[in-house]
Amino acid sequence: MNTFGHIFRLTTFGESHGPAIGGVIDGCPAGLRLDFDAIKRRVALRSPQATAGSTKRRETDNVEFLSGIYEGVTLGTPIAFIIRNKDVRSEDYADFEHIYRPGHADYTYDMRYSVRDHRGGGRASARTTVAQVVVGAIAEQWLAQKGVSIVAYVDQIGPILLPDVSDGNDVDKSPVRCPDRFTEALWLDLLEQVREEGDTIGGAVRCEIKGVPVGVGEPIFNKVQAELASAMMSIPAAKGFEYGLGMSAASVQGTESNDEMLIKKGKVKFNTNRAGGLLGGITTGEPIYFRVAFKPVSSIAQPQRTVTDSGHAVAVQISGRHDVCVAPRAVAVVRAMAAITIMDQILLRSKE
Amino acid sequence: MNTFGHIFRLTTFGESHGPAIGGVIDGCPAGLRLDFDAIKRRVALRSPQATAGSTKRRETDNVEFLSGIYEGVTLGTPIAFIIRNKDVRSEDYADFEHIYRPGHADYTYDMRYSVRDHRGGGRASARTTVAQVVVGAIAEQWLAQKGVSIVAYVDQIGPILLPDVSDGNDVDKSPVRCPDRFTEALWLDLLEQVREEGDTIGGAVRCEIKGVPVGVGEPIFNKVQAELASAMMSIPAAKGFEYGLGMSAASVQGTESNDEMLIKKGKVKFNTNRAGGLLGGITTGEPIYFRVAFKPVSSIAQPQRTVTDSGHAVAVQISGRHDVCVAPRAVAVVRAMAAITIMDQILLRSKE
Amino acid sequence: MNTFGHIFRLTTFGESHGPAIGGVIDGCPAGLRLDFDAIKRRVALRSPQATAGSTKRRETDNVEFLSGIYEGVTLGTPIAFIIRNKDVRSEDYADFEHIYRPGHADYTYDMRYSVRDHRGGGRASARTTVAQVVVGAIAEQWLAQKGVSIVAYVDQIGPILLPDVSDGNDVDKSPVRCPDRFTEALWLDLLEQVREEGDTIGGAVRCEIKGVPVGVGEPIFNKVQAELASAMMSIPAAKGFEYGLGMSAASVQGTESNDEMLIKKGKVKFNTNRAGGLLGGITTGEPIYFRVAFKPVSSIAQPQRTVTDSGHAVAVQISGRHDVCVAPRAVAVVRAMAAITIMDQILLRSKE
Amino acid sequence: MNTFGHIFRLTTFGESHGPAIGGVIDGCPAGLRLDFDAIKRRVALRSPQATAGSTKRRETDNVEFLSGIYEGVTLGTPIAFIIRNKDVRSEDYADFEHIYRPGHADYTYDMRYSVRDHRGGGRASARTTVAQVVVGAIAEQWLAQKGVSIVAYVDQIGPILLPDVSDGNDVDKSPVRCPDRFTEALWLDLLEQVREEGDTIGGAVRCEIKGVPVGVGEPIFNKVQAELASAMMSIPAAKGFEYGLGMSAASVQGTESNDEMLIKKGKVKFNTNRAGGLLGGITTGEPIYFRVAFKPVSSIAQPQRTVTDSGHAVAVQISGRHDVCVAPRAVAVVRAMAAITIMDQILLRSKE
Repeated sequence: MNTFGHIFRLTTFGESHGPAIGGVIDGCPAGLRLDFDAIKRRVALRSPQATAGSTKRRETDNVEFLSGIYEGVTLGTPIAFIIRNKDVRSEDYADFEHIYRPGHADYTYDMRYSVRDHRGGGRASARTTVAQVVVGAIAEQWLAQKGVSIVAYVDQIGPILLPDVSDGNDVDKSPVRCPDRFTEALWLDLLEQVREEGDTIGGAVRCEIKGVPVGVGEPIFNKVQAELASAMMSIPAAKGFEYGLGMSAASVQGTESNDEMLIKKGKVKFNTNRAGGLLGGITTGEPIYFRVAFKPVSSIAQPQRTVTDSGHAVAVQISGRHDVCVAPRAVAVVRAMAAITIMDQILLRSKE
Repeated sequence: MNTFGHIFRLTTFGESHGPAIGGVIDGCPAGLRLDFDAIKRRVALRSPQATAGSTKRRETDNVEFLSGIYEGVTLGTPIAFIIRNKDVRSEDYADFEHIYRPGHADYTYDMRYSVRDHRGGGRASARTTVAQVVVGAIAEQWLAQKGVSIVAYVDQIGPILLPDVSDGNDVDKSPVRCPDRFTEALWLDLLEQVREEGDTIGGAVRCEIKGVPVGVGEPIFNKVQAELASAMMSIPAAKGFEYGLGMSAASVQGTESNDEMLIKKGKVKFNTNRAGGLLGGITTGEPIYFRVAFKPVSSIAQPQRTVTDSGHAVAVQISGRHDVCVAPRAVAVVRAMAAITIMDQILLRSKE
Repeated sequence: MNTFGHIFRLTTFGESHGPAIGGVIDGCPAGLRLDFDAIKRRVALRSPQATAGSTKRRETDNVEFLSGIYEGVTLGTPIAFIIRNKDVRSEDYADFEHIYRPGHADYTYDMRYSVRDHRGGGRASARTTVAQVVVGAIAEQWLAQKGVSIVAYVDQIGPILLPDVSDGNDVDKSPVRCPDRFTEALWLDLLEQVREEGDTIGGAVRCEIKGVPVGVGEPIFNKVQAELASAMMSIPAAKGFEYGLGMSAASVQGTESNDEMLIKKGKVKFNTNRAGGLLGGITTGEPIYFRVAFKPVSSIAQPQRTVTDSGHAVAVQISGRHDVCVAPRAVAVVRAMAAITIMDQILLRSKE
Repeated sequence: MNTFGHIFRLTTFGESHGPAIGGVIDGCPAGLRLDFDAIKRRVALRSPQATAGSTKRRETDNVEFLSGIYEGVTLGTPIAFIIRNKDVRSEDYADFEHIYRPGHADYTYDMRYSVRDHRGGGRASARTTVAQVVVGAIAEQWLAQKGVSIVAYVDQIGPILLPDVSDGNDVDKSPVRCPDRFTEALWLDLLEQVREEGDTIGGAVRCEIKGVPVGVGEPIFNKVQAELASAMMSIPAAKGFEYGLGMSAASVQGTESNDEMLIKKGKVKFNTNRAGGLLGGITTGEPIYFRVAFKPVSSIAQPQRTVTDSGHAVAVQISGRHDVCVAPRAVAVVRAMAAITIMDQILLRSKE
């Protein structure tokens, strides 16, 4: 299915090499004055030329809004937008029309639908995430009015982890979305080395959401963490999601996991935030933070064994313009899906 | 929200110390002959007396079916069932009526709803998962007819990891749901030691689903991994979800991550299954496997600082009947939610 | 499907002669103090003994609430309730186990599900509407706090129409739910006459909702009239829905259909309310009124030709305890579904 | 909300005088070869120049498909399409920027959203139905492969009813979508006369769906009649929906309402089809037929009292290009929404 959200609902469409990709937002509150330049900047951050370790394919993504906006202000009606697919070198993909590329969804889409637009991965292309980034940029503008802010940055590439950092505010200027200059240099070296090997590498993105009011979220199903996990798993190459102590929660004891509560200046506060801002699926008022792991890019410039759609064994070597590591570009998508999810949860909470 | 699923939809209800908990299944195909003893056995596996590291509270959960079944066969109409809450020692909780227990959802529920059934955690109690286990048992019976089988077991308690095992078939007999006798002994020692300290400990559960046909799943949103992640995050104390290479995918290179494809006996096969049975959100036909990390039980028998609902700082020490580690009991819930998710996905995919 | 609503969601379950019928409400706001006696009274109004033209079967419907309520106040968590099926004379239906009764859903359910609980119509029985009445009674209590009130009454039985009446406030005392004593007498005579013929007769119910704020509703799909129409069509035997001028709108001219607008005491008012309180799917602030037509009860005490489930032609004559006209009992259900729909719409609209 | 359907889901967008209107179809099965000329013809039938009693505004609606189709065949991914708004004489509406036109949704949209695109009714314009017509044309192509066919025609304009006709197959050639030449002449005279008066007039559309297999539909909520009623109420100006005996079911007796069943050539058949092809919400295999009543067009060339958005009383007289009767153009929309609803129901039924 291609719709996400309960009240603030996003439906996306488009294949990598079809006429256009885009989306429709239903349920955006009326009266929001949009900053179109800010949307454009956010979309540009997802583009390959804005990040290291990315393909040199130029994606000049011009977003055209078709509805739901009048004189720059949202009408409360559906906001539709499209981005034409311009730099489509479909011939790059002619060789793979009948070949299932390892690590890609070629085979599973063929099994699922029988018919397939093989060019550039079609609907399974990471290119489709630009629609999510557009919607996320709108959601962030609404959230900013409510005092909610979001940062996201890469916190791991291959075996090299980011040390603890104070914040990720300037991260957009880093070509690897790294908030630490020393680590950035290490990562750039690593990416260059991996590229020379004709290989690719995995990475992880950390996201932090501040200012969400206490008491937002649903019990049992559709908990905030469930919605965030589902949102993050929509991003191509995502393999894991953790929030608060995350996977390491399995290793610790209760005394290392609970957050004590205090009264500070007459207000309830938590002494620590190991919970990641969520208890029982509902916000505590502390920052929500989580992490998403991404696998290495599947298109590698090395020979691999695979099969054709007529059942023959072949070897492929994928040349062409491909990213080495998806994490720097994924930062914009993680942030966008976080914004969409939290806006939806806040709106859902208000329906009472 | 308290409903999960698209075609096979589960709605649950109930507070820990209210009259009953239960659920309604909508969309279960007609004509399924139910094995009620198998349901009963599965529910028993979730009970504290069937696991080590669990509270000594007796939960004799008698499931009463109220609708949707005629002469033992599903009608295609909603299947409702209830489990009366019997052994409810509400007085254990009287002390906490106005105190927000650290690590619990007391505070967030109060902020969310203003009114709260404080007894035993109310709706936030892990007791509510028994409804999911009942539905999972029904889903597994349907899946078995389709050739789908599921195993789940604990693969980590605190810092002690399970070594690779061949399968988890006999795991239900182990009080810590451990498929390896040597590790089981280590875990039992660890749990006893932690209990004596008045502390609790985290753990993780691994689940593997075999026999799901190739081509099941949705693109973009509601991918199989998104649905599984969302399902697992509905389980109390879950802090992370990973499938295939999982979080470690961030550390490796493309050559270590892709699965090559082969023709074996005329059929498409994968040489490895690092993908965890899913590419682009759709099943490859290989086993689906994933892992869920759980935080330590929040009720610890040690003094903790916290606050009351009138804004006063207090210290609490939670005595009473509480689990030391949630992972052994969570195995039944992970398995159930996996079955529910996969059944729903197979139905969603069917006959288009 | 067995769920209705977007924010205030009702899931019902149960077969006429199964162990119980009931429902689960998800999304009811927390903090609503319930008047259980009022719920009981509303349920009683649906019972056959409270209406003329109804079966003499006694239905003493005791509603047991199982969750979502603590000390008489809603918790914001799911409210589940059950009504045990007591007076089940299943043997009345043994003759029809293999016969498709004309006008009933026996044949279509068998074609839909292959398996069927034939007793009393199973899930297709009008008895299932008691769950809707319970939920409607709760919705009305919430609506009353918002200043919304609902009346419903019979306005046609067979060819005898109700003349225009000022209101329907005392209608519950009338055994045919008629707000006019003269018409009531005519209808009682008509019903007696039809019963003596061994026949049944159709009728219609009118409903009026006052106090809904202006600006509630959705554009395009899920308009208030679409939600009401869908709600009313869930009631067994409903054959038509009209609001405002209704079907007669087809006969008139624009000058007879538009409502002029005025300023009265500084407020926008409509000079007439031919629109039925809705323009473009959204409330105008004027009363919403609509009408639902019901076909005659299908169980008639006359010989009819039909077929068996093994494909043989047979004749049936349905004796036993059956209503002559469904409209008087349907009043409670129309009112309940109106309340559920409007509460859901108001919640959906709230605070954007 | 702007989405309709469960499996075959349509989301529409667009304002009358915005850049474009359009829609996204999610859940259309893969492998359907589309006949684009047939879609174009169906869209043309909705245009004003193809019908009598319509505005002389030219709407040349060129449908551009943006995704979900490869080499003319559906991919199973979302099908997005847009229609640019060309002939937009926004200045026609400048006079009404601050005036609430009687019978229109100007006032309710303003109360709902506070901000409004007043030009041509914005989102409330009947122009938005062109998106539904596009999707309906696709649905009909899929249905045709399943042996399902649909006809729709006007059966009433003002007080002049259509006599019973054998079928509506040639109705598209009639400028008033009338299957009877004699009635057509009467209606054309009536429309001309009403236009000269500066008035408008109501009408009704009848639709018949043949070939739907027995056993399609849901019990309780989302019955086929509930989905059809909801679909029809999405059409601007619709005031009533009835199926089978419809509103007249209230007037008759059981012996005049039930359909007897027979065995004909070894198959179950109904002797009559007063039920309108539906029992208990599920198809009987007989044709489904229903009727929708439409109010007169609200834009009348006569002085009317109304108010401005600043609360002043004014008089308006709406000149410009407006339809006299909506029914002939509504035929295409009724047919489209019927196709969409039935396709969705058939797909929903197959998910088992």
